[in-house]
Amino acid sequence: MSALEHDHRETIQRLKTVEGHIRGIQKMLENDQYCIDIIQQIQAVQSALNKISTIILDGHLNTCLTTAVKGDDPQERQRVLREITEVFETANKL
Amino acid sequence: MSALEHDHRETIQRLKTVEGHIRGIQKMLENDQYCIDIIQQIQAVQSALNKISTIILDGHLNTCLTTAVKGDDPQERQRVLREITEVFETANKL
Amino acid sequence: MSALEHDHRETIQRLKTVEGHIRGIQKMLENDQYCIDIIQQIQAVQSALNKISTIILDGHLNTCLTTAVKGDDPQERQRVLREITEVFETANKL
Amino acid sequence: MSALEHDHRETIQRLKTVEGHIRGIQKMLENDQYCIDIIQQIQAVQSALNKISTIILDGHLNTCLTTAVKGDDPQERQRVLREITEVFETANKL
Repeated sequence: MSALEHDHRETIQRLKTVEGHIRGIQKMLENDQYCIDIIQQIQAVQSALNKISTIILDGHLNTCLTTAVKGDDPQERQRVLREITEVFETANKL
Repeated sequence: MSALEHDHRETIQRLKTVEGHIRGIQKMLENDQYCIDIIQQIQAVQSALNKISTIILDGHLNTCLTTAVKGDDPQERQRVLREITEVFETANKL
Repeated sequence: MSALEHDHRETIQRLKTVEGHIRGIQKMLENDQYCIDIIQQIQAVQSALNKISTIILDGHLNTCLTTAVKGDDPQERQRVLREITEVFETANKL
Repeated sequence: MSALEHDHRETIQRLKTVEGHIRGIQKMLENDQYCIDIIQQIQAVQSALNKISTIILDGHLNTCLTTAVKGDDPQERQRVLREITEVFETANKL
């Protein structure tokens, strides 16, 4: 459990970095900086968010999903597996 | 098991369609058709491949992954979960 | 030029919304909310960022790129076109 | 013009490789190979298609788009620039 909390703290820290990055991009726009530089900064943020999603998914698979799949409720197991398929499908579309 | 085989037959059929689509794109290039039309056809193929990956992942979660997570081998379980994280991470980069 | 400024204001507004969204996701993590819900919120942010990039690119094509392509400096023209290819290539990898 | 034809020949060759790759993936499914290995091969195909799109876009920018932007028809110029925005937007969603 403390391992899980540790993960969350790391993830929150990463999101704070992303938040600062986005404020920086707002400044770039206010200062009318070069569009391509701005787009590249947005793409860097998206790459950071991909990393954050992957960390959260990894934690989820090793905790909630494992519990549900080992559990006795077939509907709950189906639900949890379907969610993985859905986030994978959305990831493909981003 | 027959359900699994059925899925495979559907997936193979979808891949045959993709194969025909790609031959069509080759023809478009040979006939020097408009570049943007060609790029849009390639993007349609990529969308079809996303769908195929999602179908295969869905089958995998409900069979191999479920078996491994319920099983007695913690290393095997770790391996199977790590693979899901990896294909998710790669999906984010495509 | 005022049209361009207008675009920038809209884009800055959209980035402020994204910034608020990211703070919301931090709260979700602090409150230990369900991982899949968090991942879906991150994916919503990524979708919003895709839209923002597209708006900025659209403005760039109609201003800087058009000026460079019409201009007399072949090196500058090459540079501007190469940048478009690069952001497209990176977009494919996100 | 011969440079353009050369590009097309390289692109067609890359598409033939992709076509063979897709037939290989069909074989993997027929032989009931491991799902994750199959998904990884599909992701490799998608990466190859990204590269092909990028090559075609690069050619397009340096020929058709440059001609249209330098040309006298503002509607044609708008159309060509809008297409770039559209393929970029779709690339973000794949």
